[in-house]
Amino acid sequence: MASPDRNKPRIVIIGCGFGGLEAARALRDAPVEITLVDKTNHHLFQPLLYQVATAGLSAPAIAAPVRHLFRKQANVTTLLGEVTAIDTEARRVTLGDGPALPYDHLIVAAGATHSYFGRDDWAPFAPGLKTLDDAFEIRRRILLAFEAAEKEPDPALRAAWLTFVVVGGGPTGVEMAGTMAEIARHTLPGEFRRIDPASARILLLEGGSRVLQAMPPDLSQRAKEQLEKLGVEVRLDSRVVAIDAGTVEVQAGAAGAPATINTRCVIWAAGVAASPLGRLLAQQVTGATTDRAGRIAVEPDLTLPGHPEINVIGDLALARSFPARGEPQPVPGVSPAAKQMGRAAAANVVRRLAGEATRPFRYRDYGNLATIGRNAAVVDLTAPVGHFKFSGYFAWLFWLFAHIYFLIGFRNRIVVLIDWASAYWSKQRYARVVTDIDV
Amino acid sequence: MASPDRNKPRIVIIGCGFGGLEAARALRDAPVEITLVDKTNHHLFQPLLYQVATAGLSAPAIAAPVRHLFRKQANVTTLLGEVTAIDTEARRVTLGDGPALPYDHLIVAAGATHSYFGRDDWAPFAPGLKTLDDAFEIRRRILLAFEAAEKEPDPALRAAWLTFVVVGGGPTGVEMAGTMAEIARHTLPGEFRRIDPASARILLLEGGSRVLQAMPPDLSQRAKEQLEKLGVEVRLDSRVVAIDAGTVEVQAGAAGAPATINTRCVIWAAGVAASPLGRLLAQQVTGATTDRAGRIAVEPDLTLPGHPEINVIGDLALARSFPARGEPQPVPGVSPAAKQMGRAAAANVVRRLAGEATRPFRYRDYGNLATIGRNAAVVDLTAPVGHFKFSGYFAWLFWLFAHIYFLIGFRNRIVVLIDWASAYWSKQRYARVVTDIDV
Repeated sequence: MASPDRNKPRIVIIGCGFGGLEAARALRDAPVEITLVDKTNHHLFQPLLYQVATAGLSAPAIAAPVRHLFRKQANVTTLLGEVTAIDTEARRVTLGDGPALPYDHLIVAAGATHSYFGRDDWAPFAPGLKTLDDAFEIRRRILLAFEAAEKEPDPALRAAWLTFVVVGGGPTGVEMAGTMAEIARHTLPGEFRRIDPASARILLLEGGSRVLQAMPPDLSQRAKEQLEKLGVEVRLDSRVVAIDAGTVEVQAGAAGAPATINTRCVIWAAGVAASPLGRLLAQQVTGATTDRAGRIAVEPDLTLPGHPEINVIGDLALARSFPARGEPQPVPGVSPAAKQMGRAAAANVVRRLAGEATRPFRYRDYGNLATIGRNAAVVDLTAPVGHFKFSGYFAWLFWLFAHIYFLIGFRNRIVVLIDWASAYWSKQRYARVVTDIDV
Repeated sequence: MASPDRNKPRIVIIGCGFGGLEAARALRDAPVEITLVDKTNHHLFQPLLYQVATAGLSAPAIAAPVRHLFRKQANVTTLLGEVTAIDTEARRVTLGDGPALPYDHLIVAAGATHSYFGRDDWAPFAPGLKTLDDAFEIRRRILLAFEAAEKEPDPALRAAWLTFVVVGGGPTGVEMAGTMAEIARHTLPGEFRRIDPASARILLLEGGSRVLQAMPPDLSQRAKEQLEKLGVEVRLDSRVVAIDAGTVEVQAGAAGAPATINTRCVIWAAGVAASPLGRLLAQQVTGATTDRAGRIAVEPDLTLPGHPEINVIGDLALARSFPARGEPQPVPGVSPAAKQMGRAAAANVVRRLAGEATRPFRYRDYGNLATIGRNAAVVDLTAPVGHFKFSGYFAWLFWLFAHIYFLIGFRNRIVVLIDWASAYWSKQRYARVVTDIDV
């Protein structure tokens, strides 16, 4: 148990998502003292969070304790805590109830959460999916809706309990809608005596003209077809104008009259809002700007204007990529980008400590993949050897192995594989545990 | 989706623990309509609940959805709900928010929870372990105590965060203390930079003169030695007289002055209180009595006096066993007894419907086993071929395979085996996920 070496440069990293984790790892051989702060005790493999929300995986399968991941990296001290202030003048980070942390270099990787576009009053009726607690809440609502329907004598109310609405046709919305259809059609039938779970309606509402807008249009079309084959009603150009405990109001097209959907379970998969730390930093740094989502604009080397000792990376950063040729491109808010920014920031920290010039960030885009449900996915690969687009069963297999490969920790990979294999053959979802039931 | 047959006798079973589950299964071929009501959506394998509380297993590994277990048993309808009233005159059970359920025969298997012996004000400071939510709360407190210690500059407060007290030396208390010592000595070392987790103190307080009082005295002594070898301080004849947010007051012996233990994490593993449905029934049934724990006394055939249509089984029943020879014996509150009562009640229901006489319950005691921690357990077997007592590594292996054998559901068994094998070799505990952190 070595005491931290006070003579080494002190690096504070805020957040242990993909960006922060990768930055800390990339500094493993650097002569620095790293303090890694996170407000949870685990690194969350967010691409599989929808599986926890749909009872396919248990929470520990996709969450690894941060301090366990760094047990052998002696230059990392892990602290559990929420950052309440950053003093860029005194170079000090304050935790809510813990010690103040002085830094020589700060890496802010605090991520993003969902946003209701100024309609936070919708939050209680339409939970989003960013944390494990969000996933438990959504799992609870989905499973309890079927339980309530089984008990409900009134046919209209029963139909409302069996109507599920997903708002937002991005990757999360598509995954959620597809998997919910799988639950209704494949997992639950045969287990109820008074209702037919397969009669449940799953609606996916997308404000734009296609789902998965980061994908090429033909793959969006394939995704829509696969969703419909799974039993999802996909409504494009459909804007949500109101949500309350029992209804969702939707406006179709620009001039359509709002239509009412009676539902007891709404999932929010639409907006993104960066961590409040972005605005907190922007207030202190001359020349710093944030966009509408609260992301803070960074210099080409991912630092803040006039503050070469502060990096902002991941979903909190409004970053551009500087390719060898051509114009700078915006960096998307996806996990490979966060990981690349983490490594780039770490490399620039090492350069700076060595008195060398930092380098601009260059994002390598390997493409895009999204899963839809049982045997269904779309893949758009930008490999050095060419461009590949495919969908359906093989895309799903590709997606599956890519995700298991990137899962942190050997134990998780094995267990996730077993869970998936057993879920695939039995069509069952084993994590159907609901606690804290308000009956 | 067959509609319930209104001409068949209606059996309502309250509770889907070991007793209720076994009763419903034993009625699988009976010409009856069963409604199985539980206030959770899962059957919980309670003997392994301490593993969830100590981060060794995920919740879904020990919890199987009730309606999934009965998906192929067409005469069972599963309802999620809490029973708020039983009308023994009108023969009707009322759910909080659901339909009233008329019955021709009622089986009450509502179980028990923990009791603070009239000191319910201790509950916020010393959670007990009966439900998954209890297990999550205990896991949260244990893991966050180490996190808080890592952040705490004051040595006295740090020592309090690293002091863990388990109240009660029964099977749950012994399991919890042994496993907490395992976490402190084997799982966490190497992961902290400012504290040494192995310096944590684990105290087990038992009011009586030995731990595991249901075991023969020599096995109690062996259990105590194994606990001490794991690093647990076992204090016998030690009665807890006060608990608050930062201290436990203990009186040693009959006349000793109370001593104060500074601690931030207390686990309650002492008293048992039967479900309030016991007293609710006793108020309506002439001649029915309850004991101090709220268990209701049952007739030899597990029915209530004057109510051959009501069985009470499991931990809620104050039952006696009627052996072929010798005096009636009290039935212990353990899961094999609950299962046997479930089968006996079901068989008596079938006899009653056929106009035959019911039979008195006979408990078959196969012995007792308790685990202590890594490689440590005690086993006391009463087999038809003789009496076996053993302890240590082979007792632990025996305990392990017995529990995995009885785990409900094939998937759970495999995953639990893998989790245990990996935990055993790596000394790691993978379910170290804490959500809802108040930092």
